[in-house]
Amino acid sequence: MKASIVTIGDEILIGQIIDTNSAWIGQQMNKIGIELTEIISVADTINAIRIGLDQAASVSEIIIMTGGLGPTKDDLTCEALAKYFGVDMVFHNKLWERIQSMFAKRGRQTTDLHKEQCYLPSNARLLENNMGTAPGMYIDSNGKQFFSMPGVPYEMKYIMETHILPQLAEASPVHIIHKTIMTAGQGESILAKEIEHISSALPLHIKLAFLPSLSKVRIRLTGKSTADKTALETEVNDNADLISTTLSQYIYGEDEISLEQALGNLCLSTNKKITTAESCTGGLVASKIVSVPGSSRYFVGGIVAYSNELKEKLLQVQQSTLDNHGAVSEDVVKEMLTGVLTQTGADIGVSISGIAGPGGGSPDKPVGTIWLACGSFDKQVTKKLLLSKDRTLNIQYTANVALDMLRRFVL
Amino acid sequence: MKASIVTIGDEILIGQIIDTNSAWIGQQMNKIGIELTEIISVADTINAIRIGLDQAASVSEIIIMTGGLGPTKDDLTCEALAKYFGVDMVFHNKLWERIQSMFAKRGRQTTDLHKEQCYLPSNARLLENNMGTAPGMYIDSNGKQFFSMPGVPYEMKYIMETHILPQLAEASPVHIIHKTIMTAGQGESILAKEIEHISSALPLHIKLAFLPSLSKVRIRLTGKSTADKTALETEVNDNADLISTTLSQYIYGEDEISLEQALGNLCLSTNKKITTAESCTGGLVASKIVSVPGSSRYFVGGIVAYSNELKEKLLQVQQSTLDNHGAVSEDVVKEMLTGVLTQTGADIGVSISGIAGPGGGSPDKPVGTIWLACGSFDKQVTKKLLLSKDRTLNIQYTANVALDMLRRFVL
Repeated sequence: MKASIVTIGDEILIGQIIDTNSAWIGQQMNKIGIELTEIISVADTINAIRIGLDQAASVSEIIIMTGGLGPTKDDLTCEALAKYFGVDMVFHNKLWERIQSMFAKRGRQTTDLHKEQCYLPSNARLLENNMGTAPGMYIDSNGKQFFSMPGVPYEMKYIMETHILPQLAEASPVHIIHKTIMTAGQGESILAKEIEHISSALPLHIKLAFLPSLSKVRIRLTGKSTADKTALETEVNDNADLISTTLSQYIYGEDEISLEQALGNLCLSTNKKITTAESCTGGLVASKIVSVPGSSRYFVGGIVAYSNELKEKLLQVQQSTLDNHGAVSEDVVKEMLTGVLTQTGADIGVSISGIAGPGGGSPDKPVGTIWLACGSFDKQVTKKLLLSKDRTLNIQYTANVALDMLRRFVL
Repeated sequence: MKASIVTIGDEILIGQIIDTNSAWIGQQMNKIGIELTEIISVADTINAIRIGLDQAASVSEIIIMTGGLGPTKDDLTCEALAKYFGVDMVFHNKLWERIQSMFAKRGRQTTDLHKEQCYLPSNARLLENNMGTAPGMYIDSNGKQFFSMPGVPYEMKYIMETHILPQLAEASPVHIIHKTIMTAGQGESILAKEIEHISSALPLHIKLAFLPSLSKVRIRLTGKSTADKTALETEVNDNADLISTTLSQYIYGEDEISLEQALGNLCLSTNKKITTAESCTGGLVASKIVSVPGSSRYFVGGIVAYSNELKEKLLQVQQSTLDNHGAVSEDVVKEMLTGVLTQTGADIGVSISGIAGPGGGSPDKPVGTIWLACGSFDKQVTKKLLLSKDRTLNIQYTANVALDMLRRFVL
């Protein structure tokens, strides 16, 4: 069984809203083993909806529609469905009664527009929507199953969870198992090479994907089978374990955990307090650490020493070190680290100084040159990055490297 | 001219990532007057890509593809395009040289997989991607224009902005003029009421939209016409001026300028140095200030005093003030402000202490209670916010309020 989503609404096509509904529906379908073939977003016109339905039905047996069911003139899904199937619209009295009582409870008046919402294609079965006025619908036509829901996320979710997912889950014959391994500190192609002996030996029903972003790479295994679910799970997990063993030095977690969350968990389990001394990242590393609930248990605070004066005053960097080596140097980040550990009393810290760009580069130290130091009073490691010309990217990338250095040190 | 987007990648269909690329592309196409007909998301298989291309080409002249261009086995777009057009793959030596020099600069090794990335369909023109190894491509076939880009957002944006949008904009027959007015510190409905006399008098071809986000509201005027572009521009600008005059106290800029950029411009023109003392925002305000190129000319640095100990040690907050009023109080943020001005020597600062949540609330001070102080040694203003239960939202919202307070003070 394969499914397609058809989302209806100009607001998606002009980018005014991001289509989060489809991602959520994709996750849910995936969990019950139904493969999504396509997501198609179309405009608010009868013709665009017809084309979308034709395309979806040409590749799938299940067509899940969202949007275009509201009370206003630009909501055309009901009319489009009636025309698509060549049927009349019929009035649903039960729906009208529910809408009236809903409005009465809220002390509000219904309008003619609400009454018009109660006309549905004659071949549609009503899927009750207790979260709003727009109806859900189910149409069975020549072996294809069409579902229609409003685009408001919580109404859509209610109808999916109450009506559609239970109906589809019962009929689904396929099991899908995902396992995602989170890595940091190594590029996609090197990772791919190191596990080539595993990936080339994967059976056809298990797929491997690499998803890179800013110094991190997610490695995802997807197993699909109509046979024994437990056997599939074991098979996917065994391969994930093989990959984890081979790439252990780069792995910081599983299943969409963030670097800052992984770092936080380690700090809690090792009972370590951490701190940050930032120049070019300007507090981004600290703010990522603080984005994790409960971070006050291991993050004491940090210092953003953007000017050289503050590097000296707040972090006790020697003026001679700045003069001899420049602010972007191994010596300076080492002194920044010692300084912030002294000032804050934390066990482990990270320090960063670099040329984020677009200005400030020199032949000797081009834009994208970044130095980091990480460690305790006893032991420190340093790292030099040579990144791009893009300020935002350089800052974001460096922040992830800093979090990963902290994580490795706390480990 | 109509366009369709084809996004390639299982990660969208299984809901592992949300397709933000298409929303961004939709916005950009809209700005240059090209209507988006469909967004189609397909799986990582040759057959799925072929079907997606067929569907897109059946409704549009312009087909914009993202994804499937990486160096690993699951990246099949190049092969799919070659098969779709029935052409061979040819090696692009210039691309290979660029990748090698990019890696050499970063002190890293290329692999065979990178070399394979340099084989492109023979009918494709290379669109240089300075942000990564995956190539952009342009194929003109029977009057249809196909563009292919990697799915990594910043690489996609680079190729769109550098190559595709300029090429398409030149060919577009519709004039679309946008003017966006940026406001902070007042809600959408109050703003709408204050300019109702202007919005109700707008001609049909000029649309007004309110786009609220985290203490800011963007007010966007959109004029559309196939006639005289200059007349349209004048009409849109005149209405924008009327709105600007009416709402002047809330306006911080035009055309998608960020609060931090507006603040930076004011600091430069008034020659003021600024600083930050952050608790619950954890460095986010500082990192937003630093995200602006050239911020070293007015931002000296700041202190993230997350624990009470560091509030005392680094910001000279009195223990008695913490004991008597609690860390989240007007008295504490005032002392934090004085402390950070003393420590950094800046002219103007902002300080923040609050309960971001989800834990840490009390009946007296529920989650979402935030205190801010802003000013100089001579004059200070304070503000109390009562926000939501959501940690991320509270932190993001507060950071924007802090930037707006700094902006108003520097003004």
